[in-house]
Amino acid sequence: MVCGLPGIGSVAWLAVNHLQKELKAELFAEVFSPMFSPKVWLTDDGVVNLMKGEFHFWKNKNGENDLLIFTANEQPYSPEGQYELAEVVLELAQKFNVTRVITMGGMATDKFTEQPKVYVGATDVEQVKELEGIGAVKLAGGAITGTNGLIFGLAKPKKMPAICLLAETPGYLSLDANAAKAALQLSSKLLNIPVDVGALEKQAKENSEAVQRAKDLSRAGFGHESKKGGEKELPYVS
Amino acid sequence: MVCGLPGIGSVAWLAVNHLQKELKAELFAEVFSPMFSPKVWLTDDGVVNLMKGEFHFWKNKNGENDLLIFTANEQPYSPEGQYELAEVVLELAQKFNVTRVITMGGMATDKFTEQPKVYVGATDVEQVKELEGIGAVKLAGGAITGTNGLIFGLAKPKKMPAICLLAETPGYLSLDANAAKAALQLSSKLLNIPVDVGALEKQAKENSEAVQRAKDLSRAGFGHESKKGGEKELPYVS
Amino acid sequence: MVCGLPGIGSVAWLAVNHLQKELKAELFAEVFSPMFSPKVWLTDDGVVNLMKGEFHFWKNKNGENDLLIFTANEQPYSPEGQYELAEVVLELAQKFNVTRVITMGGMATDKFTEQPKVYVGATDVEQVKELEGIGAVKLAGGAITGTNGLIFGLAKPKKMPAICLLAETPGYLSLDANAAKAALQLSSKLLNIPVDVGALEKQAKENSEAVQRAKDLSRAGFGHESKKGGEKELPYVS
Amino acid sequence: MVCGLPGIGSVAWLAVNHLQKELKAELFAEVFSPMFSPKVWLTDDGVVNLMKGEFHFWKNKNGENDLLIFTANEQPYSPEGQYELAEVVLELAQKFNVTRVITMGGMATDKFTEQPKVYVGATDVEQVKELEGIGAVKLAGGAITGTNGLIFGLAKPKKMPAICLLAETPGYLSLDANAAKAALQLSSKLLNIPVDVGALEKQAKENSEAVQRAKDLSRAGFGHESKKGGEKELPYVS
Repeated sequence: MVCGLPGIGSVAWLAVNHLQKELKAELFAEVFSPMFSPKVWLTDDGVVNLMKGEFHFWKNKNGENDLLIFTANEQPYSPEGQYELAEVVLELAQKFNVTRVITMGGMATDKFTEQPKVYVGATDVEQVKELEGIGAVKLAGGAITGTNGLIFGLAKPKKMPAICLLAETPGYLSLDANAAKAALQLSSKLLNIPVDVGALEKQAKENSEAVQRAKDLSRAGFGHESKKGGEKELPYVS
Repeated sequence: MVCGLPGIGSVAWLAVNHLQKELKAELFAEVFSPMFSPKVWLTDDGVVNLMKGEFHFWKNKNGENDLLIFTANEQPYSPEGQYELAEVVLELAQKFNVTRVITMGGMATDKFTEQPKVYVGATDVEQVKELEGIGAVKLAGGAITGTNGLIFGLAKPKKMPAICLLAETPGYLSLDANAAKAALQLSSKLLNIPVDVGALEKQAKENSEAVQRAKDLSRAGFGHESKKGGEKELPYVS
Repeated sequence: MVCGLPGIGSVAWLAVNHLQKELKAELFAEVFSPMFSPKVWLTDDGVVNLMKGEFHFWKNKNGENDLLIFTANEQPYSPEGQYELAEVVLELAQKFNVTRVITMGGMATDKFTEQPKVYVGATDVEQVKELEGIGAVKLAGGAITGTNGLIFGLAKPKKMPAICLLAETPGYLSLDANAAKAALQLSSKLLNIPVDVGALEKQAKENSEAVQRAKDLSRAGFGHESKKGGEKELPYVS
Repeated sequence: MVCGLPGIGSVAWLAVNHLQKELKAELFAEVFSPMFSPKVWLTDDGVVNLMKGEFHFWKNKNGENDLLIFTANEQPYSPEGQYELAEVVLELAQKFNVTRVITMGGMATDKFTEQPKVYVGATDVEQVKELEGIGAVKLAGGAITGTNGLIFGLAKPKKMPAICLLAETPGYLSLDANAAKAALQLSSKLLNIPVDVGALEKQAKENSEAVQRAKDLSRAGFGHESKKGGEKELPYVS
C-alpha cells in the first residue's frame, strides 16, 4: 500500500495522486468523517463533494503484488483525528493482507536542489538497509509529524512492515513536483512497478525555471544574500 | 426540507425564519446539544431558552409536498459539532421521507448590488441544470464552509437530492435581507410555494438606503476611494 | 437546590459557600471529571485535592423543604464539559425530587453600588413575577454564559422549575461579597430559610472601603475622570 | 510505583529514567494513544517509534517491595488526555497491588541552588510527616499542574497512598539534573533502594559550571543585576 496525504510541499499528495492516475487504479472505498474540516467543495460542474479519504486498487497484471493507494483531500484538523484516520487506513490494509506500507512526505531544507535526496525511516533496520541499497539515505533521528508519519508509526505495533520516504523540499514551495518525482521513483523501484513520471517532470521543470528566475532577480540586486553553503540546515519533517 | 443556519450576512437564517413565519409552519422538534455554545438567552419576559435547533412543519394544502424547515440560533462552535448537527438534521429528514434538501448561504463579494445573483451547487448535475433553468448561476468550484454546507454535502452519500443556494452579499453586512430575499424567491419558485417577501423587502430597502448614505458620505470626502470596477473579487462562501 | 460556581466577581461561589457554611450543610457527594483543569491543589497540611464539584445536604428542621447545595472549585474548562457538569447536577437533583433549582451569578455593570440590584430570569413567567414580588428585577433579554446559566437553562426541558439570580457587580472586583450578600438574601427570602450574612457583610464593608480609598486617590489627582452618571452600561452577564 | 513525565526542568523525567537505567528495570508494557502528539520519532538507526508511555518492572532481590516505574516521551497534549493517561497508569498500578505511588516534579524558583529543597505533598497527613522526617519540606498550599500532579491526585479517591516530590529548580533550565538527583535521593531513601546517582551528579556539575560561567560574565558587566536575596519568589509548580 502506498499512502500520501497533503503536507509540506504537497510532496506525498502529488506523488500518490500521480501514481493513482498513471496506473489508472480504481476507487473502491471512501472515508467520510467529522475528523475532516467542516466544509464541502464543488466540482466545475457545481457538484458537491465532502472532504474525504480515498482508497484506490490496482490489479498487477504481472502476477506480482497488487497495490492499494490511499490519499485524502487534507489531513484531519485535530490530532485525535489524525490518529483515528491512520488507524482506519491500517485496518483496511490488514483486511487486504497488505505486505508493506509505504508512506511519503517532504523534508524541508530551505534550499532548492535539482536532485533531492530521499530519506528513509522504517519499522525495522532491515528495511532501512534495503532502501539504502536502492539509493535512499537513512533518516537518523528526528521526528515526522502528521498523518503520513502516524500511518507509518502505527504500523509497527500491528507488526506490519512499513517505510516512510521523505524527499528534500525547499519549505517555500507549496507544490514541489520535483521532490514528489524523487519519492515516487524510489517507490517505483522498490515495488518493481514502472511509473511514467513525465507529467511530474514537466511540472518540476516549471518549478525549477520559476526558482531560477527568482534567483536572477536576486542577483540583479533585488534580493538579500543567500546563506553561505556548507551550513547545516535544521530539517523540519512533515 | 429547507435549512438555514446563521452565517455570512445571516442570509440563510433570515430567509428560513421569514419562510417559517410567512407559512406559519409549526414547531414540532427541538435539538439541544453540548455542540452549541455554553450559554442561555432570555426573552423580554425573563424566560430562559437554550441554544438549539428547531424543526418546523408546514402542511401543504394544495396536496403537493409538505415542507420541513430547519434552523438554529447559531452554528455549533466546534467542527465535530457541525458534522454532528448536520447528521441529526439529515436523519430526521430521512425519517420524514424528504425528497429534496435545500440549504442556503451567502457568498461574500465585497460590493453591494441591488440584484444579487444566486449561485447553486447540487448533489448531481441534473439539479444544477434545473436551477440554472429558473435563474440560478452554477457554482463552478470553490468551497462552502460550515453547517449549511455540511447538511448539503452529507446528503450525497445518503443518496438524498440536495442543493445549496448562495446569494451574493457584501461581507460587511451582518443582516442582508436583500440577499435573503433573493435566495428565498428562488426556493419559492423551485418548491412552487408562493411566499410574500414584503417584510424582507422592507428591511432590504432600509439596508440599501443605509449603504447609499454611507456612499454619499464617502463621496463628500470622508471615505477612501472604492476599488475600480471590473476587478474579479475572490468569493468567500459560507 | 442552590447552585453556584465561580464566575464574574465570584458572586455565586461566595454566596453558595457562605450558605453551606452557615447552614452547616453536609458533604454527601463529589464529582471528579476530566472536564476540570488538569491540576490538583494542596491544603495547608500538604494534602492533595482534585478539582471537583461538591454536593452538600441540609436537613430543614422546620419540616419544610430540605436543601441541596452544589458548588465546584472552578467551571469546567471546555464548553462540552460545562454542559456535561450541568447535566450531572440536574440528574442528581431529579433523583432527590428537587422542587426548584436556584442558580446565581454576577452581572457586570462597571460601577460600584452599595445596594446592588438582583436581576432574575426563570423557566417560566410565573416565577419571574414571584421574584419581582420580593424585590428582584426582571432580566429582559440578554445571555447568561457558563455553567451557572446552563444548569438554569437545562432545567427547562427537564420540566424542573428554575431561576437564576444575577447580582450587579463591578467587573473589576474578583471577590464581590456585597453582590453575593444581595443574591443570597433574596434566595433566603424565597426559600424562607434565615441565613446570617454577617461574614459577607464584613467582607463587603472591606470591599467598600477599598473602593472608597481608590476614589479618594482618584479625586486627589491620580486617577482619570470617572464616567458621567446616568449612562446606560452594557451588561455582561456570567 | 515511581512515575515521572517530562515537565518543568525535566526533573521527574530525568530522575525516573535514571532510576530505570540504574536498576536495569525491564520494559513490560507500553501505552499508545491519540492523547499523545500526532508524530513519530526515529532512532539513529532510522527505526520508527510512537510517542508512548512505558512501564518498567524491577524485581527486588532483597525480598522487599518490587518496583513499577512509569514514564513517557511527553505529557498528553490535551487536558482530557492527561486525566486519561493518569487513570491508565493507576489502573495498572491497582492490578499490580502497588502499595504507594510516588510522582515527581520541579518547583520553579527562578534562582539556582546547589542544594535544592524537595517539597512534598501526599494523599494524607501521615505521609507528609513521614517525608518530613527524612528531609522533605511540606508543600503547604499551591497547585500542581499536569500529569505528574493528576497521577498523584487521582490516587486519592482510589484509596491508594501517594506522594508527590517537587524539587526546587530554576525555571530557565530545561534539563535540571541537580534537582532530579535531589528528588531521586529522597525516593531512594523512602523506598530503601540504593541508587547510584553518579551520572546525574556529573550532569549536575556541568549545569552548575555553566551557570557559574554565566554569573562571571554577568559580574564582568554583561548582565543585568540579579534580584536582591531574601525576596520571596512565587513558586510555579509543574
